[in-house]
Amino acid sequence: METLIRSVLTLQNGTLEAGDVLLMGDRIHTVAPANTIPTAPHQRIIDGTDRLLLPGFVNGHTHSSQVWQRGLIPQLPLELWLANVFDSTPQQLDQFYWGAVSTAVDTLLSGGTCLIDHAYVIPGQEMETVDALVRGYKAVGIRAVIAPLIQDLPFASGFPKGCLLPQSASPRSAAELLAMMEAIISEFHDPDNGIYIGVGPTGFHRCSDDLLAGCGELSDRRDLCYHTHLLETRAQQHLAQERYGISAVQHLHNLGCLTPRTSLAHGVWISEDDIALLASVGSTLVHNPVSNLRLGSGLAPILKAVRAGLNVAIGCDGAASNDAQNMLEAIKLSTILHNVTDSDYEHWLTPEQAVQIATIGGARAVNLGDRTGTLAPGMDADLVLYNLDHPSLLPRTNPLQLLVLGRPTDVVDAAWVQGRQLVDQGQLLTVDTATLHHNLRHQPVSRQESQAQHHPVEAHYRAVMLPSVSSLQ
Amino acid sequence: METLIRSVLTLQNGTLEAGDVLLMGDRIHTVAPANTIPTAPHQRIIDGTDRLLLPGFVNGHTHSSQVWQRGLIPQLPLELWLANVFDSTPQQLDQFYWGAVSTAVDTLLSGGTCLIDHAYVIPGQEMETVDALVRGYKAVGIRAVIAPLIQDLPFASGFPKGCLLPQSASPRSAAELLAMMEAIISEFHDPDNGIYIGVGPTGFHRCSDDLLAGCGELSDRRDLCYHTHLLETRAQQHLAQERYGISAVQHLHNLGCLTPRTSLAHGVWISEDDIALLASVGSTLVHNPVSNLRLGSGLAPILKAVRAGLNVAIGCDGAASNDAQNMLEAIKLSTILHNVTDSDYEHWLTPEQAVQIATIGGARAVNLGDRTGTLAPGMDADLVLYNLDHPSLLPRTNPLQLLVLGRPTDVVDAAWVQGRQLVDQGQLLTVDTATLHHNLRHQPVSRQESQAQHHPVEAHYRAVMLPSVSSLQ
Repeated sequence: METLIRSVLTLQNGTLEAGDVLLMGDRIHTVAPANTIPTAPHQRIIDGTDRLLLPGFVNGHTHSSQVWQRGLIPQLPLELWLANVFDSTPQQLDQFYWGAVSTAVDTLLSGGTCLIDHAYVIPGQEMETVDALVRGYKAVGIRAVIAPLIQDLPFASGFPKGCLLPQSASPRSAAELLAMMEAIISEFHDPDNGIYIGVGPTGFHRCSDDLLAGCGELSDRRDLCYHTHLLETRAQQHLAQERYGISAVQHLHNLGCLTPRTSLAHGVWISEDDIALLASVGSTLVHNPVSNLRLGSGLAPILKAVRAGLNVAIGCDGAASNDAQNMLEAIKLSTILHNVTDSDYEHWLTPEQAVQIATIGGARAVNLGDRTGTLAPGMDADLVLYNLDHPSLLPRTNPLQLLVLGRPTDVVDAAWVQGRQLVDQGQLLTVDTATLHHNLRHQPVSRQESQAQHHPVEAHYRAVMLPSVSSLQ
Repeated sequence: METLIRSVLTLQNGTLEAGDVLLMGDRIHTVAPANTIPTAPHQRIIDGTDRLLLPGFVNGHTHSSQVWQRGLIPQLPLELWLANVFDSTPQQLDQFYWGAVSTAVDTLLSGGTCLIDHAYVIPGQEMETVDALVRGYKAVGIRAVIAPLIQDLPFASGFPKGCLLPQSASPRSAAELLAMMEAIISEFHDPDNGIYIGVGPTGFHRCSDDLLAGCGELSDRRDLCYHTHLLETRAQQHLAQERYGISAVQHLHNLGCLTPRTSLAHGVWISEDDIALLASVGSTLVHNPVSNLRLGSGLAPILKAVRAGLNVAIGCDGAASNDAQNMLEAIKLSTILHNVTDSDYEHWLTPEQAVQIATIGGARAVNLGDRTGTLAPGMDADLVLYNLDHPSLLPRTNPLQLLVLGRPTDVVDAAWVQGRQLVDQGQLLTVDTATLHHNLRHQPVSRQESQAQHHPVEAHYRAVMLPSVSSLQ
């Protein structure tokens, strides 16, 4: 199967140029100046006039089952928000399937061709949950890294002075969890079909050193992504000092967890030393600006990270803290939010840089920098074609800048993953979105009101965490 | 003409309740519990099932002609950005007409029924420019306050130590500008048809005391909105100290410019004393979060303003600094952005508060708090009906929260302004949007590259403004 996209705008070395792009099988075969590749009878020809072709974005951090909690949970700091999330997490396999489909569709229709699902899994039904997610992603055809959330410390351990909180039963041991991950990898890791299993310890705050290091060993041995939450809140920064006496980043490094396969979600409270260390080991910081604002987590030091050469990717985070899965929104906010943190505009991210971060940066975050994220011969054909004639992209000033800084909607005309076309004329070719929306509309959802005021965590927040945070402001 | 919207979700005293709403002529006649208003043969009946009815938002600050500069100007601090804006401002009356139509349509289709156009006017063609804007707004049917931008100090005066910059010719005198405003008011101020002229001195930084005070006198005498930029950047804060020796807010108050008719755009750098003064005189702060991030202006003290009882409204700002006119985006960002400025979540804005700010707050900003912004009998029927079955508003958790915190698109099902229906089933009833989009697509637009590096303002920025800003960080 060959597809020739003729005379289409592409981003080459940071500038927009019209070119021809020939796809052959699952790869990009040729990129050439506009109207120079000869057509052939067996080719599908796509007229690229008034279109922009970019590598697909990578949605670098999400929790797909939170689709069912979209719009549900009030604005609360992470620690209180989490208590609400746990109380309303879906428990039906069917919901996990549709959560994956919905997350994949929203990611695709906002320019993404790959995602990292840091996935909640139903206790006791872990294999079945991952199976539901895999079925969902295969149905859509998106490239997906599924990293089941695992932890071996109880909820209360995730807080500074958590010993003051009521203690729940401990989850399973590190050894049990690592054995479970081995089974999941054996069953579901399927790179040839675009499905990858990652190791996803929830975060240092909920994990023993044995589990964190064991995940590192597994990532090394099986060449898997290592994906974990890192220093999302100031409370976690305090916890790291309380538990380790050193920064959480240094501790992860000492355990052997930081490699080029490692991607760390949030990092709002990493220090300049942390940034230098992460850059030196080639790990990735996954920025989630919408979630970081909704939960009041803070402004991540993204400009400093980029200037230090740390690889950065962009994620939506789960729909309980966003409450959308729109990559263009996350990219816009990543581009404009950090201007207020540096008065010299020459340090601000340009739209071109933001696209690089969301594409190549994201590809490196999923350990696939040599396969996707770049529009070049030999790379996998993970591509998105934007319709520049859509009203939200008019007038025709700088199309890339308007794509990033505007509020484009319904602008994805076509999308390919590993050469397979998944979207045509804005419509999914693989799944029936009407059925998806029928399910989202009619499956029962949790409607619980916020329990924040009545939760023991609220008292802990007010007594312990709030004063310690305020004293540092 | 009577319209009965039956069994529709409404926001009453901060909570969602199903109700019946009867519109009669240009007013809301009755609001009653669901399915209690008897139907009558002459009524148009609208089934409100799976719909949410809110008062229309007020787009509290925009510059409509910047539609033509959407996507054009790089991310730069205000002072450098302005130099680029001036270089590429439209000069054709036709562009002003379509700019008004486009701004009105985008505002309406994101839930707004009123806007403040702080309007650029073509020098020497001021009456003709306002005429083009009025025709545009009347064609769409939106309620519009047009406040032509006027100033009597040259561009360089708007900068700290601006005397070091090349001096351009001075604009016209305060007396000439005030006479021009009198003529514009006589010709175009037309409240019965939803068109209002406001007095819009650009900002203290570009205006003499005579002009600022003269505008205040005009606002008092003719009962008009007084709309002006205020302390958008730290440079303006320095300028106020340099020029007045007191805060710009106190200076405006001393000149008699601060009344309940006064709305002040941005206010990023107002102090707590300024907030208290503005609250005491009943003026309005118009928050423009997207623009404030794109230009790196800063985080406005919105939570402090709300807690101090200062009336707050929300604006998109012009499309050269946004680059969209989507009220739902501006409301979302207003709701989540400021969480990072206060560690106690009980101070964070709720979605319900955000809607109040965008509706009642906006109505007060345009001196129409007794006519619009509230869903109650006797108020003007400025209403928007949202389709809760749209995929971007699923699943059915908390519809208001999802409207504010999600990324809803194409969710406006119907809209009325002064009882006249302007939108039905998501389509404009008044203007042909295909013609609008054809114009946006095919009229020539400026494509100039950024001149920032070559502009004398850049040298001034780097030599004078950047060090003074950095020293305070």
